[in-house]
This record gives sequence, structure tokens and C-alpha cells, in this order.
Amino acid sequence: MKLVRFGPAGAEKPGLIEPNGTVRDLSAHAADFAAETVSLEAISRLRDIDPESLPAVAAGTRLGAPLARVGHFLAIGLNYADHAAEAGMPIPAEPIIFSKAPSCLSGPDDDVVLPKGSQKADWEVELAVVIGKRMWQVSQADALAHVSGYAVANDVSERKWQIEGTGQWIKGKSAPTFGPLGPWLVTADEIADPQALDMFLDLNGTRMQTGNTATMIFSVAQCLSFLSTMMVLEPGDVVVTGTPPGVGMGKKPQVFLKAGDEMRLGIEGLGEQRQKVVAE
Amino acid sequence: MKLVRFGPAGAEKPGLIEPNGTVRDLSAHAADFAAETVSLEAISRLRDIDPESLPAVAAGTRLGAPLARVGHFLAIGLNYADHAAEAGMPIPAEPIIFSKAPSCLSGPDDDVVLPKGSQKADWEVELAVVIGKRMWQVSQADALAHVSGYAVANDVSERKWQIEGTGQWIKGKSAPTFGPLGPWLVTADEIADPQALDMFLDLNGTRMQTGNTATMIFSVAQCLSFLSTMMVLEPGDVVVTGTPPGVGMGKKPQVFLKAGDEMRLGIEGLGEQRQKVVAE
Repeated sequence: MKLVRFGPAGAEKPGLIEPNGTVRDLSAHAADFAAETVSLEAISRLRDIDPESLPAVAAGTRLGAPLARVGHFLAIGLNYADHAAEAGMPIPAEPIIFSKAPSCLSGPDDDVVLPKGSQKADWEVELAVVIGKRMWQVSQADALAHVSGYAVANDVSERKWQIEGTGQWIKGKSAPTFGPLGPWLVTADEIADPQALDMFLDLNGTRMQTGNTATMIFSVAQCLSFLSTMMVLEPGDVVVTGTPPGVGMGKKPQVFLKAGDEMRLGIEGLGEQRQKVVAE
Repeated sequence: MKLVRFGPAGAEKPGLIEPNGTVRDLSAHAADFAAETVSLEAISRLRDIDPESLPAVAAGTRLGAPLARVGHFLAIGLNYADHAAEAGMPIPAEPIIFSKAPSCLSGPDDDVVLPKGSQKADWEVELAVVIGKRMWQVSQADALAHVSGYAVANDVSERKWQIEGTGQWIKGKSAPTFGPLGPWLVTADEIADPQALDMFLDLNGTRMQTGNTATMIFSVAQCLSFLSTMMVLEPGDVVVTGTPPGVGMGKKPQVFLKAGDEMRLGIEGLGEQRQKVVAE
């Protein structure tokens, strides 16, 4: 299934999208998607519903992020060997964990707003993993059985705030609209192998990032298992798993986002996002 | 008011505690405390209730954390000059921001569980600030008007995981039971000056930490204002604001928590916590 949330920002309803692109209204059957309502169990109950029995939503209706909120918005840093090289950082010996403020979540096609003082905003197309079952000390072999599904994320980053001030990356990862997610939450059964997905990001029509999840340093299963040795992951938590080469910081000369820019990004099987960049 | 949550772990109800120590059941008047139910507005509505009209709770009933969950669990690092010195770190030029997993939240007197592989678990008594109103780009002068209240927190930390592996402190700050909060959420009107509160932590009856919030490098207002330039803070988010000297890592020789240890910690006007340390 491809789960969505449709409607005006702040008033989205849960739905699903059919292969032909028709969005169907699930709000009579499901509470808004977040936490327990995207658990493996809750999603499995949705499978019994015949999509044809659901009201169709008008074509062109806005899609929001497929989650109303994120419990814990985790991220893995420098998880593609080529990206670590372009960032001038050594290949890490274990996954680098950081987090984004849950309040940075936004819709896949919503504007990205450069906050006051931002000078070095950058893009990062990433595979997002949505947790479907409590995880604590879970082995790599069992990790993917705890995943509800996958989505495209843009891990928008203010490099000056992330790197140049006092430590800890969270500062540059958390402004409102810095977490576009979606358009769909694609349930795990539709992704045969999360380590074989093409991904790309265009800036103003020029290809900036090209990659495939096959070149992750630490696989999704490794990242989740590692995280679960240090903290409990819960249904509705999101882990974005790193970005392939081609971010603005790594270009020579460096390129950063400015008002008027347009990003288009996508991952095989998970759909595409388009964001306009605007100044605050 | 001093707000509490009482009852068995996972089944707490909202309440308040009177000056004489009687806990009163607020569950007929308030949904469980978290997010919007601890907004300034929601708390202000509770003020109209006569505590004497509420059912009294049996003495000795367990108190849980005063919040059912934390939206974003933020923390300020090295925020007391003497603590920065004992940690061997320079005094930061701006607040160091990191975060704890929301799933680390636990009750003020619940056991602290050392997770598998933990070797250097440590204590940190901290003033916790509970956000009551959305904050984005708020001035220092206006910051405290967005605070619902204050609580004691123990920012339990696995130093090996925090510092010795690949970057980013979140790893060592997030295990389950690493976030004792409470016993009370003391509403802001009861704390005349959050920068004049004595605080302490005893380990096995020996005083380890002694401090006062007067010696913070960055005041609560400065920390919140700074955070709000980089991310939106929302009702029910918690910011723990740094720890005074006396953590185990700073002792010579270093002292770390082991099964059987007992911690007692408190802050003037905010009550005390007691935790037994157990092995997983």
C-alpha cells in the first residue's frame, strides 16, 4: 500500500493512493497517521479494506507528509562512502547518529523556507524508514521486520549552523520545513530490497545527486540494529539513512540554496518531491 | 501548582499535589499531561478548579514522570562553567545543543537500568524546562513567558557511548530510564527566579554535585531564545539546561554507576528524585 495524508496543511486526512493515482479517503477507517496508527498491526488491519469502497479524493488535492508527526526524527550521517569523501570526513567506523526536531516535518511539495540568518542551506535526498514496532536490542537479521515502510525525505541542512558553531549537528537540521517527507509512506512489502533503490536530486533542472541505496556504508538493517542497542525506537519514529554524493557543500565552488530555487528529488518506488525555496 | 502523574507505570493519571503532600486526581478535568495539555492555556484552565473538590489519592501511590511523553527532549551541554572545566572542555561560545530520545523518559523514583554493554554510566542533576507555547525566533526578554513550568531531571549519560565512539552525544543520552523527570511539574508562577535555585545530587549518601542555577553560562531565557532561532519549540517539549560540577566522569579517579547504587537529587522548590541503579 501507499499511504498518504491529503488536504490543506494542518487539516490533512489519512488516505491511500492507488496505482492509477487516485487518492482514496481512509478517514472513516483510520485515525490520522502517527505513532501507533502506523504500527505494523494497524497497517495490517488496513489491508482488509477494498480501496474501491472508499471515497475518491479530487485530483490535484495537496498531499502533506504521510505522518502527522514524528515521534523521534533520527538521522544517520555520512552513510554513503562517496558523500563522506565529498564532505571531507573519514568513513565512520560505526553509524553516526544525529536527530532533527520533530517540528521540522513538512509536506513533500511544500516550500522550503530559509530561516533568518541562514547562509548555507543545502539539500540531501534520503531514504526514510518508518518504524512499525518497538525496537530494543534487535539483531540485524530481525531489524527489517520492525519496519512499517519507506518514504523519500529531504534532509535539508543549514551547514553553517550544523558544522561551524559549537558541536552537534541538530542545530542545522531542524528549522521548520527542513524535513519534507513523502509523498507516500510505501509499506515494506512493496519494497523487495531497500538496498537496491535508485535516488536522485535535481536543483533547477540540473542533476545534483545520483545514487543508489546499494552504496550505503551501513545498511538499513545495520543502522536500525545499532540504534536499538542505545535507545528504544517506537512506532512512528522515522530514521533517515544518509545521502549519496552531490550535496551543495561538496561542490567546487560550493552551492547553497537561495530563494527561487527549485528542488526535485525521488527514490525508486517511493515517488518524487518538488520544493520551491523561499526566504522567510 | 505542582502537577503530577500518579499510578502504576504506563497507567498513570494526571493529578496535582497540595502543599501538605496530598495528591488529588485531576483525571475528570484533564487529559493525560503531554503536548497541548501542558500548554499555558490548558494549565491556566486548571487553576479554576478547587483542589478540595478533587478525589484524594492514597498516600504512597507511585508518581510517574509528570509528562506522559516528551515531544522533543532537548538538552544544553556544558552549561555550567565549573562543569565544562571538569569535563576538560572549553567554555562554549554559544549553547551546545543535543537531544535525548523521547523514549528515555522515566519516573522520578524508577530504577535506572544500565543497558547491555554500558561501562561508564554517569549522573547529571539538571533543571528541566517545560515549554507551554510555540516558540520561533523569540527574544530573550520574551522567552520565559513561553514556559509552563520546571522540574528536576537526571540527564543520565553513558560516557563511552556519548563521547568515545563516532560523534554526536545523543547515543549516550537515550537509553530507556536515562530520563528521570519529576516528581512534579511546578508551574512557572511558583518559581520567582529560575536562575537562583540550589541543586544537589548524592550517590550512596555522599554529596557528589552541589550547584546553583545562578552559575549557568547561558540562562534559561538565553538557551530558549537561541534554540528558537534554529527550531520551533512546541508545548510539551522539554529542555534540560545543563549540570553543575560533580559528575562521575570529572572525579579523580572517575566514578561510574554500578548496580546497587542509589542516587538522590533535587532542586530547590522542585522536589527530589531517588533512583536505584540496576543491571539489565
